[in-house]
Amino acid sequence: MRFSLNQWTTRYWPLPDLAAGCASAGVTGVGLWREPVGEYGVARTSKLMREHGLTVTSLCRGGFFQREDAVENNRRAIEEAAELGTSVLCLVSGGLPEGSRDLDGARSRVADVLAELAPYAGEHGVQLALEPLHPMYCSDRCVVSTLAQALDIAAPFPSAQVGVMIDTYHLWWDPDAWTGIARAGAEGRLSLFQVADWVTPLPEGVLTGRGMLGDGCVELRRFREAVDATGYTGPIEVEIFNDAVWAMPGPDALDLTLSRYHEHVA
Amino acid sequence: MRFSLNQWTTRYWPLPDLAAGCASAGVTGVGLWREPVGEYGVARTSKLMREHGLTVTSLCRGGFFQREDAVENNRRAIEEAAELGTSVLCLVSGGLPEGSRDLDGARSRVADVLAELAPYAGEHGVQLALEPLHPMYCSDRCVVSTLAQALDIAAPFPSAQVGVMIDTYHLWWDPDAWTGIARAGAEGRLSLFQVADWVTPLPEGVLTGRGMLGDGCVELRRFREAVDATGYTGPIEVEIFNDAVWAMPGPDALDLTLSRYHEHVA
Repeated sequence: MRFSLNQWTTRYWPLPDLAAGCASAGVTGVGLWREPVGEYGVARTSKLMREHGLTVTSLCRGGFFQREDAVENNRRAIEEAAELGTSVLCLVSGGLPEGSRDLDGARSRVADVLAELAPYAGEHGVQLALEPLHPMYCSDRCVVSTLAQALDIAAPFPSAQVGVMIDTYHLWWDPDAWTGIARAGAEGRLSLFQVADWVTPLPEGVLTGRGMLGDGCVELRRFREAVDATGYTGPIEVEIFNDAVWAMPGPDALDLTLSRYHEHVA
Repeated sequence: MRFSLNQWTTRYWPLPDLAAGCASAGVTGVGLWREPVGEYGVARTSKLMREHGLTVTSLCRGGFFQREDAVENNRRAIEEAAELGTSVLCLVSGGLPEGSRDLDGARSRVADVLAELAPYAGEHGVQLALEPLHPMYCSDRCVVSTLAQALDIAAPFPSAQVGVMIDTYHLWWDPDAWTGIARAGAEGRLSLFQVADWVTPLPEGVLTGRGMLGDGCVELRRFREAVDATGYTGPIEVEIFNDAVWAMPGPDALDLTLSRYHEHVA
């Protein structure tokens, strides 16, 4: 089973309940987030996952390279990923520094910090997975805006150390997404495939408006097939930030997500 | 003076007041919108502009090619542009048809409808100016999302008939924007340059959150210089959709816009 539940889809489901709920639904993969894992304890989370037969498919997230403590903070994230037994650390690069208009500079800094982190990731068996975020997040969240750009930034590094995320929510609009997916596969950099749908109108702040699979306009199955065509056989993580899904009890949200996954993705 | 006031920046300023206000501020160019022009009357608007020494730098907007009456409606827009004496008809392509996920199909339709319209535009001395809109509008407003894509769609047509808009609000995030601007100039397709700034957080629906010049993170002057470097000597239209600016009296909004234009663009 390639389905993996990203923890943020069921954001308010406590970790032990999530682990038990996934196991009881036959789900074998979960994508975890650093904050709730940190609260529960990394070693304790790792043990909890093993006890429920769960594989950690990714850790979200490192990045935010504009911050002063970026290198130190991301080294800790690499260590946590290794301790959780996942080889994928999702990186959201961060936006422009407060008051800055130097987009080229911010993008250069991503490459510079990656250069400091990549060998350390390699030593820990972790691939840094650069995530291009939708261009509407460029100023405040992620200056890496397209898959081609992410691959260009990754290019100087060994593919075992730096890869890219393919998330349908962020890439669906891009006419070059298909070329980019093939390139990511050919270059051995396709770290992880995530799915969510695109729905409008976008909510204020545009953070929590991701659509449940099938509710929007993304050709989800076409993306899955394009990713598979590269030879990728890894997990398919469902990551949906959506107030209505968050308001559901965890087991119900998981049931709905699983059923939509089978209908629209698998 | 290259400054031009796009009518939507001072959306609620009645046309006669706008014309008088521009003339008294020494402004010589305005970009007009079809709806208020239609209400006032096209011939009457044309006369009003002449009387105040104003040049119409563009007519916004044709497009919405997914609609059944797209060809007929855009032919009327071409005629109106010609009657107003502007050679630039801004085209916003439209999004996906209701319930559709066929993004490639919607993009193909843009090319098909353009093929029907382009000769008619040419006969009227009007260049159809395809506007790439920010990818956050891809599903509901404009399936043309990047400058490169707009230029690819325009490529089969004579440059006198089909060009592209350069709007900083829509393009600022794109790492390929600079290459695209140079290409647009080299191919004779740089129809018009528009400016607005990017600010966050985005409001619900993401339509009215454009920033006053200088309030955001766009390298406005760098864009102006890149556009000028292609040999473009045309108008620089300020088009800002912003509730706070709309709430200002027209003359005050124009004063602010002019002063910010000189500070951040000229």
